[in-house]
Amino acid sequence: MGEPKKIIIDTDPGIDDAMAIFLALQSPEVEVIGLTTIYGNVYTTLATRNALHLLEVAGRTDIPVAEGSHVTLMKGTKLRIADFVHGTDGLGNQNFPPPKGKSIEESAAAFLVRHANSYPGKVTVVALGPLTNIALAIQLDPKFPKKIGQIIILGGAFAVNGNVNPSTEANIFGDPDAADFVFTSGADILAVGINVTHQVVLTDADRYKLAQSKGKFAQYLCKILDVYFSYHHDAYNIKGVYLHDPTTLIAAVNPSLLTYTTGVVRVQTSGITRGLTIFYNTKKRFAEVTEWCDKPTVKVAVTVDAPAVVDLIMERLINS
Amino acid sequence: MGEPKKIIIDTDPGIDDAMAIFLALQSPEVEVIGLTTIYGNVYTTLATRNALHLLEVAGRTDIPVAEGSHVTLMKGTKLRIADFVHGTDGLGNQNFPPPKGKSIEESAAAFLVRHANSYPGKVTVVALGPLTNIALAIQLDPKFPKKIGQIIILGGAFAVNGNVNPSTEANIFGDPDAADFVFTSGADILAVGINVTHQVVLTDADRYKLAQSKGKFAQYLCKILDVYFSYHHDAYNIKGVYLHDPTTLIAAVNPSLLTYTTGVVRVQTSGITRGLTIFYNTKKRFAEVTEWCDKPTVKVAVTVDAPAVVDLIMERLINS
Repeated sequence: MGEPKKIIIDTDPGIDDAMAIFLALQSPEVEVIGLTTIYGNVYTTLATRNALHLLEVAGRTDIPVAEGSHVTLMKGTKLRIADFVHGTDGLGNQNFPPPKGKSIEESAAAFLVRHANSYPGKVTVVALGPLTNIALAIQLDPKFPKKIGQIIILGGAFAVNGNVNPSTEANIFGDPDAADFVFTSGADILAVGINVTHQVVLTDADRYKLAQSKGKFAQYLCKILDVYFSYHHDAYNIKGVYLHDPTTLIAAVNPSLLTYTTGVVRVQTSGITRGLTIFYNTKKRFAEVTEWCDKPTVKVAVTVDAPAVVDLIMERLINS
Repeated sequence: MGEPKKIIIDTDPGIDDAMAIFLALQSPEVEVIGLTTIYGNVYTTLATRNALHLLEVAGRTDIPVAEGSHVTLMKGTKLRIADFVHGTDGLGNQNFPPPKGKSIEESAAAFLVRHANSYPGKVTVVALGPLTNIALAIQLDPKFPKKIGQIIILGGAFAVNGNVNPSTEANIFGDPDAADFVFTSGADILAVGINVTHQVVLTDADRYKLAQSKGKFAQYLCKILDVYFSYHHDAYNIKGVYLHDPTTLIAAVNPSLLTYTTGVVRVQTSGITRGLTIFYNTKKRFAEVTEWCDKPTVKVAVTVDAPAVVDLIMERLINS
C-alpha cells in the first residue's frame, strides 16, 4: 500500500456523518487532514460543535476543524435542516456536553484552498453536505478545481426519485446553485447519489453486532443510532438505515467497491424540480446546442457491492 | 369485440404521425372521429394541411380536421419545430400538392370539448404533439377532464435522457406549461414516454417489407420515410426509426401490449430542465409537503412488447 490519501471531510454531522468520520479515522488508506463544516443535517454552528465533539470522542483533537458557510452561495435562500432525521442536536438527541476545543480561525473555503495549494493534486475532499464551501473555495481560487485531487460528493438522485421530494436529493437541494457551479467546474468529481446509497443498508442485525462489540466507535454509534433508525422506519418502512455518508467515504477508501460512469451533470436551480441532477453521458447527439454541451465531465457511481461495503464498515467500526 | 373506441388524434404530421393516422384508419378497434392539429414537427398551418392531405390519401375526407393553436399556452414562447427530423414539409420533402379540403371552422379545443360532451366518457384523445390544444380544451370547459374518456399522450422521458436535451422530450418541451396543466388536471391520462418508444424500432428490413407490399399506406409511407431514416442514422447511429406515434396509437388499439404504472407526473416549466417530466409513484413518503402532493395520478407506460407492436403495425400497413 502506498501513502495514505489525504482527505478533508466537508460535513454536517449528522448521525451517518459521525459514522463516516469514524470510519475514515479507522481506515489506513486515508489520512484525515481536516474537517470543514456546513449546514444540512444541522445548522453550521452546530455542525462545527459536533465535528469538534466527534474528534474529541475519537481522541483525534490533532485534526483541525474549519467552520464553513452559514448561508447558501446565493445567500437569502431559506435553509432546509434535516433535524427530523438526526435529532435536534444532529447526534440522536443525546445532549452531549460541549466540546473543549474550538474551530480554527480560517474559513472552510480558505482551508480547502490552502491545502489544495500545499499538496497540489493530492488532496481528496469528501463532501457529505450541500456544496457551498466547495463553491466558495472555487470562487476564492479559480484554480482550485485543478489543484484539488478529487472531490467525492454525496449528492444527487440519478434516474430515481429524490428524498426531499420526487425530483431532488437533500444535499443538492441544500444549495443547487453551488452544486451546479461545482459539477461544471472542471474538477475531478465523483458523485455518489441516493440511487446508490439507498442500496447500502445497516440492518437491525448489524446494529446488534455493533452493540455487542467493545469497539469505542461502535459503542458510541449505538447510542446515537436510535433516532436514525426510527426515522427510516417511519419514512421508508424499513428496518435499517441508509449508509449515505459511510458509502461515500468508502468511495475514497476503496473505490473498487463501486462502478462508475462518466458524463456531464447539471443541476436545476429553480422551479418545482429545484436541486434536480441530470446526468448526460455525452454520447447521444442532439439537434440543438444544449446546456450540457461543452461542460466538463464528472464520474457518477452506478453500482455498489453493498454487502462488501457494509462488511468493511462493520469490520472497521467493530475493531475500534 | 364491442363497439370501436372513438378517438380524436391530436397531431403535428410528421412522418410517424402519418404512420399513426394510417394505422388508426386500419384498426377496427378504433373509430377516428376527427383530427386536431398542433405545431411540433411543423407549424400548425402546415400540420393542418398535412392532416387534410393524409386523409385525402386515405380516401377518408369524411373525417373532420380542426385546426389547433398556433402558439403555446402562455403564448410568447418561441416554438421549436422539428423540421430537421421530418423534412421542411413535415412529410419527407415530397412536395405533395395542396389538399382539396379545408379544416372545419371550429377550433381544435372547441372540437374536443364538443365531442367530450356528446359522448361523455367515450372519447379517447391520442395526443401526438405538444399539449396546448388539450390544455385549451380544459380552460374552455373545466369539466373536460372528467368528460373525456382517456387522454393518451406521447410525451415525457421517464428516468432516461430526453431527445431535445438530456432532460427533456420534444412534445413536452413544446409546451411545458400546457403539459403540467394537463398532467395534473384529473383526467384519465396514459403517458407513453421515449423510455418506451425508443424500444420500438422499424428496421431497414421492415421498410423493405413495406416497399414490397402492395398496400397503399405502405407504398405512401415508403416514399416519405427516407428523411426520417436519415435523421435517425445521423442522430442516433441506428439503422431504423423510432415508432413514437404508432406505438402511442397502439396503446389505444391494444393496451395489453404495454404495461403501466400509476403515479403523479409534474413538469418543470423553467430553467435548464424546462419540459422535464418527473414521475412520483406516491408510495414513498417525504418529510415535507411536495409539489406532487394531492395531485391526481396518471398512468405511465413502463414496458412494451416491442416485437408484437412492430408486427401489428406492419400487418395493418401492409394489408391496406
